[in-house]
Amino acid sequence: MDMQEILDEIVAHVAPLCLQGEVASYIPSLGEVSPDSFGICVAMADGEVFGAGDWQKPFSIQSISKVFSLALVMSYDYDSIWKRVFREPSGTPFNSMVQLEADRGIPRNPFINAGALVVTDRLLSITGDAAASVRGLLRQESGNPEVEIDALVAASEADHGHRNASMAHLLASYGNLENPVDEVLDSYFKQCALAMSCEDLAKASRFLARHGVAAGGTPFLSPNQSKRVNAVMLTCGTYDAAGEFAYRVGLPGKSGVGGGIVAIVPGRCSITVWGPALGPNGNSVAGIAALDEFTAKTGWSIF
Amino acid sequence: MDMQEILDEIVAHVAPLCLQGEVASYIPSLGEVSPDSFGICVAMADGEVFGAGDWQKPFSIQSISKVFSLALVMSYDYDSIWKRVFREPSGTPFNSMVQLEADRGIPRNPFINAGALVVTDRLLSITGDAAASVRGLLRQESGNPEVEIDALVAASEADHGHRNASMAHLLASYGNLENPVDEVLDSYFKQCALAMSCEDLAKASRFLARHGVAAGGTPFLSPNQSKRVNAVMLTCGTYDAAGEFAYRVGLPGKSGVGGGIVAIVPGRCSITVWGPALGPNGNSVAGIAALDEFTAKTGWSIF
Amino acid sequence: MDMQEILDEIVAHVAPLCLQGEVASYIPSLGEVSPDSFGICVAMADGEVFGAGDWQKPFSIQSISKVFSLALVMSYDYDSIWKRVFREPSGTPFNSMVQLEADRGIPRNPFINAGALVVTDRLLSITGDAAASVRGLLRQESGNPEVEIDALVAASEADHGHRNASMAHLLASYGNLENPVDEVLDSYFKQCALAMSCEDLAKASRFLARHGVAAGGTPFLSPNQSKRVNAVMLTCGTYDAAGEFAYRVGLPGKSGVGGGIVAIVPGRCSITVWGPALGPNGNSVAGIAALDEFTAKTGWSIF
Amino acid sequence: MDMQEILDEIVAHVAPLCLQGEVASYIPSLGEVSPDSFGICVAMADGEVFGAGDWQKPFSIQSISKVFSLALVMSYDYDSIWKRVFREPSGTPFNSMVQLEADRGIPRNPFINAGALVVTDRLLSITGDAAASVRGLLRQESGNPEVEIDALVAASEADHGHRNASMAHLLASYGNLENPVDEVLDSYFKQCALAMSCEDLAKASRFLARHGVAAGGTPFLSPNQSKRVNAVMLTCGTYDAAGEFAYRVGLPGKSGVGGGIVAIVPGRCSITVWGPALGPNGNSVAGIAALDEFTAKTGWSIF
Repeated sequence: MDMQEILDEIVAHVAPLCLQGEVASYIPSLGEVSPDSFGICVAMADGEVFGAGDWQKPFSIQSISKVFSLALVMSYDYDSIWKRVFREPSGTPFNSMVQLEADRGIPRNPFINAGALVVTDRLLSITGDAAASVRGLLRQESGNPEVEIDALVAASEADHGHRNASMAHLLASYGNLENPVDEVLDSYFKQCALAMSCEDLAKASRFLARHGVAAGGTPFLSPNQSKRVNAVMLTCGTYDAAGEFAYRVGLPGKSGVGGGIVAIVPGRCSITVWGPALGPNGNSVAGIAALDEFTAKTGWSIF
Repeated sequence: MDMQEILDEIVAHVAPLCLQGEVASYIPSLGEVSPDSFGICVAMADGEVFGAGDWQKPFSIQSISKVFSLALVMSYDYDSIWKRVFREPSGTPFNSMVQLEADRGIPRNPFINAGALVVTDRLLSITGDAAASVRGLLRQESGNPEVEIDALVAASEADHGHRNASMAHLLASYGNLENPVDEVLDSYFKQCALAMSCEDLAKASRFLARHGVAAGGTPFLSPNQSKRVNAVMLTCGTYDAAGEFAYRVGLPGKSGVGGGIVAIVPGRCSITVWGPALGPNGNSVAGIAALDEFTAKTGWSIF
Repeated sequence: MDMQEILDEIVAHVAPLCLQGEVASYIPSLGEVSPDSFGICVAMADGEVFGAGDWQKPFSIQSISKVFSLALVMSYDYDSIWKRVFREPSGTPFNSMVQLEADRGIPRNPFINAGALVVTDRLLSITGDAAASVRGLLRQESGNPEVEIDALVAASEADHGHRNASMAHLLASYGNLENPVDEVLDSYFKQCALAMSCEDLAKASRFLARHGVAAGGTPFLSPNQSKRVNAVMLTCGTYDAAGEFAYRVGLPGKSGVGGGIVAIVPGRCSITVWGPALGPNGNSVAGIAALDEFTAKTGWSIF
Repeated sequence: MDMQEILDEIVAHVAPLCLQGEVASYIPSLGEVSPDSFGICVAMADGEVFGAGDWQKPFSIQSISKVFSLALVMSYDYDSIWKRVFREPSGTPFNSMVQLEADRGIPRNPFINAGALVVTDRLLSITGDAAASVRGLLRQESGNPEVEIDALVAASEADHGHRNASMAHLLASYGNLENPVDEVLDSYFKQCALAMSCEDLAKASRFLARHGVAAGGTPFLSPNQSKRVNAVMLTCGTYDAAGEFAYRVGLPGKSGVGGGIVAIVPGRCSITVWGPALGPNGNSVAGIAALDEFTAKTGWSIF
């Protein structure tokens, strides 16, 4: 199996899919991305890195940041976050407030927006600057000191953030925020506005393919914690299409509206794909097709 | 690692948990089971079988039968069942009709009751006798020709089956049943009333740990189909506690209100545990604790 | 004010509306009605009767029968029915099962299907033949001994009755039916299949405009009961358009999918309109426009 | 019928009920009110005013203010507000966000909080100061120039206003606010914090019993508008107990968490009752009992 060849073939095959779906445009800067961009990168657990297409072009990681803020909180605080957020699939579209209300302010999982706000709030309490902590982790793990928050995107998110503000106030009304609503939102918008390439992200998420071992060789998460982050990614990582993603791709994965998806083959590698046009569930159309082809070609699946 | 020793230890450890939770009692015959029963069986992909506790005592498999009816339908019909049922976690308690109505008669997944009725309906159309087909598969795979439907339990289910009848009529109102409501319900109640031991069930589900290869060595499912049944088990197999089960146990699994749970370590083994007392989500309390300990001790996890 | 002139004008004005909306066609016999039929009848509390258009042509009264089965149960049983059914507007489409499940088997009000099934069940327990009791009341109050159940419509309802069957089984699963599901459904389908003209219905509902006094001059309901039936009609009589109906028409009213609507001006008169084409909420488009014009012209409103 | 005697009797009868229910305490100043306060006032359409108990003691009118902001908007703008808010009973607890989301940002009616925020937003656009407009109307109609906003209550509402802030941001996310969220909330909290006695409120709402004619004898609303405000009060004025209120009291009414209720007998009088202890639906327990007795004794009902 020649990994580079596999990736090159995938890039050729998914090119036509890049025109399917729609680029997220709720904020102007996201909508400006060229829809026919596509990149893929595989970072092997043992260090080798393969890439094809636009794999070194930065994009807005958006919700993929939620994996890293969760991992950080767990690294500091082990398991206490689970008193404030469940870890069940939501079963409903990704920013619904229905369940939050039915469950008295406890979000269904840390990867829907409401849950991520709670995780960010906790990280803010622990570190004093949640977005900087996430950026620090991503710089360290990717080995790229230039990973940065796109200030324009962050400001733009804030301008169009009524729904997240609504959710944060609802959490606060149930007493499930420790910090002022405005500060939590500010941290959240910033962490979502981090810009990274497929290469950066594949390297940065490699600790989840290495049972928690960080780039420097020391444990960032325990093997048990790493396994659990992967479990939450599998059941909750792709909004209300988690079942479909498990069925088609068969790997833990986390997507973002910027069009990126991170997937993990525990013990083997981390993979990042990026294609800006999204399907009806908010996941990259080309990205999912690429992961589908990747698992078919490699035979790598957790099932 | 001495598997027998592991199982013996687990049986000793979970004994006190058997008095936690409540034995399902919506039908009399289920309520009569002694709550301190507990069994565990591991059937290795290569043939060895280990058991401890009440591992050879039959119990009512109930919803675990849904795995086998789904596998049967997929074996005949490959993928067409997915036009009539989704494969997303339900996000709500396991016999809710809310989503069925919101989704215009398409159940969320084949492991909630509504979805299982659709699968049974399809199997009835294909084979003419759905319950007998499931029994046939279970006899063949377990190697136990005496696996049988408990007629008393089946009759009792029918007597207390207003909620399932309600669901079946709702499916019919959306045109999502091919057969008369009464016949579908009859088949469904019978397949749920199959009585099997942990040993029977572990052997019978071993094809899912062998990439679809049946007891006789011939393919029952393709590797791809087997992987997909496992994916659906992971995301949807334990009612609205699928996220929790993935987090704690980290394996595809399917539970039933009789207190049984089947779990799969792809490529390695199938496991069956049985403890009649159920937690608030309808899953065996002792059974989940046993699987938790099993994965901790063996280090076997898909994540 | 010349009542006959008012009615003639209304018939002329609403004629063009008869082609708006759609005739209910879920059962064949309902769909065969000519959509440009329109009738109106006003029965004054003191005995005078006015009619225009197709006011003497019988149509299927459908859900309007629910007013009479409720009145009958209250006449026998005063207030005890309210332990088994609420009297709150449903706030959701008229045959939804969501609320029934959320409220543990207590329907929101007696005019949605679930609630009417409970009322029919009670009437069946009291009289032994619910549909015959309703027919008896309607014959007596309308003075028309030929009011009859359309057997074809009743059979047709039963053939297409999966949704009602689903609801009845759900009620039974919560223990909120006293009689077997099949018998309750049979009674319900029959009472909905009564055929009556605007004239029959206006006369038959006149007791609600006379503080409960029946055609023969004796009390059928107490003034308090009559007032309460009117209150339930106002808040719950027109499915999820009750607020709109109160706003536009300003009278207690009850509609049916056959296109009829009965409205009450307490102390003055009862009104029946009939136009088979229905708007999105299941109410007669021409009928509501006619009632709107009627209240505008007469100035009669409860507000 | 001696009205003063009726009111005195009612005050005596409901006294024991004042200890049932609970005084709203989500903000400190509301919780400080003595629970055994009770007042009632009847303002006849022709000018006479009767009162008993604590009828001249001011209390926080809270949601009763929504009637006046709606009337004001309709007086300026006739019917255009109905493009931004429905007029259907909510069918769910009064501050739920579920329906708001299902209906894409259009609140169910102007008397739930979400709907009132939209009405306040419109009034702010029209007059530049929504709370001052409401205060102006209330001063003019009550003839009491000292009707004032309780600044402490308004500030306290703002401090505890996460749920309303959540709702306002959700409305804004659907484009259903014309003004900045903070300004709308500020106006809303102020109008709810108006302090008035039963006497003030009965006089101020008398125009709804006089077909829209204001205290000065000139039309404030048209007869048709007045009738429609009453219709909305009947179907939506008492949160999710509107059906119950119509059944027991049989009059249009609007309640507030301060314990006040305004009810209208069209053509005859307006009534205000006040008892701070609330039942499970957020309506004054003693107040509803008092209105029940009032309608029973006077025989005044719209049904």
